[in-house]
Amino acid sequence: MTESLDSTRAAAWRAYIEASQRLFTQMEDDLRADSDLSFADYHVLVLLSEAPGQRLRMGELAGRLVFSPSRLTYQISSMQRRGLVSKEPCPDDRRGSEAVLTAAGLLTLTEAAPHHLASVRTHLMDDLDDDEVACLTRIFDRLGRRLRAVGTTSNTHASR
Amino acid sequence: MTESLDSTRAAAWRAYIEASQRLFTQMEDDLRADSDLSFADYHVLVLLSEAPGQRLRMGELAGRLVFSPSRLTYQISSMQRRGLVSKEPCPDDRRGSEAVLTAAGLLTLTEAAPHHLASVRTHLMDDLDDDEVACLTRIFDRLGRRLRAVGTTSNTHASR
Repeated sequence: MTESLDSTRAAAWRAYIEASQRLFTQMEDDLRADSDLSFADYHVLVLLSEAPGQRLRMGELAGRLVFSPSRLTYQISSMQRRGLVSKEPCPDDRRGSEAVLTAAGLLTLTEAAPHHLASVRTHLMDDLDDDEVACLTRIFDRLGRRLRAVGTTSNTHASR
Repeated sequence: MTESLDSTRAAAWRAYIEASQRLFTQMEDDLRADSDLSFADYHVLVLLSEAPGQRLRMGELAGRLVFSPSRLTYQISSMQRRGLVSKEPCPDDRRGSEAVLTAAGLLTLTEAAPHHLASVRTHLMDDLDDDEVACLTRIFDRLGRRLRAVGTTSNTHASR
C-alpha cells in the first residue's frame, strides 16, 4: 500500500471528516441548549435504556462507547451526580460494577429524544434521498463491523 | 416536521454516528501512537500548512476548527509548548493575533502525514468502491456547506 490517496478519495475523506466534525459539534450544541446533555451523556442514556433491566456492566459500556476505563468512570460519576444513573455491584461478580439507569435518567432521555431527533433530521437526514440513505447505511455498517472486529482482536495502540 | 425518523433512516443515522465515533477514536489512537499528536493537533498543522504564509488569524482558525475561542487558546498554547506553532500579533490589527506554523511543526506534519494517510486508507477508504466514494463526497460536501452557512448566519445555540 502506498501512503497516499488519489485526489478523488482525498476529497471524499476531507468532505466526510470536516462535515462530520462540524455536525457533531453542532448537534452537541443543540443537545446542551435543548436538554443540558453532552453527546456522551445522551449516548449512555440510550445504551442503558435499551439494555435488559436498563443496566450494563462498566466494561461492556466502555466497549460500546469506545471509552477508556478512566474516561468512563469520569463520565458515569458526572451522570451520577446529576441523578441520571446509579452504580451498583454486579450480582455475579462482586469486583465488577454496573451502571443502572434511574427513573430520572429515563425521563431526561424521553424529554431529550424528540429534540435530538429533530436535530438529526434538520442537519442531515431530511436532506438525503433514498439512494443516499442506503449508501450511508452500507458504508458505515461495514465500517462499524470492521472496527468492532479490530477492537476485539487487538488493542495494540490503546495499550501503548 | 414530526420528531421521529422512519426505521430505514434511523438505522442509517445510527450506523453513521456509531461507526464514525469509533473511527475517530481509532484514528486518534493511531495518531498518538505513531506521531504523538491528537486529531486537533493534526488538523491545526494541516490548516496552517495550507494557509498563505503558513499563518492564520486565531478567529479564522477557530471558525475552521469549529472551536470556541477558549478551546482554541488552550489548543494553541499546548502546541506552542511543544514548539509546533508560535503566536504573533496580527500585522494589520494589533489587538488580534495569528497562529504561525514553525519549521518543527511542518516537519512533524511531514513525518505524521504518511502514517495518518495509511490509517485513513486502512480503516475506511480502501474499502469503498467508486460509487460509494462519489456518494460520500456528495452527502458530506452538501452537509459541510449547509453547516458552514448555519455557522455564519446564526450562532444562537453556541451563545446561550
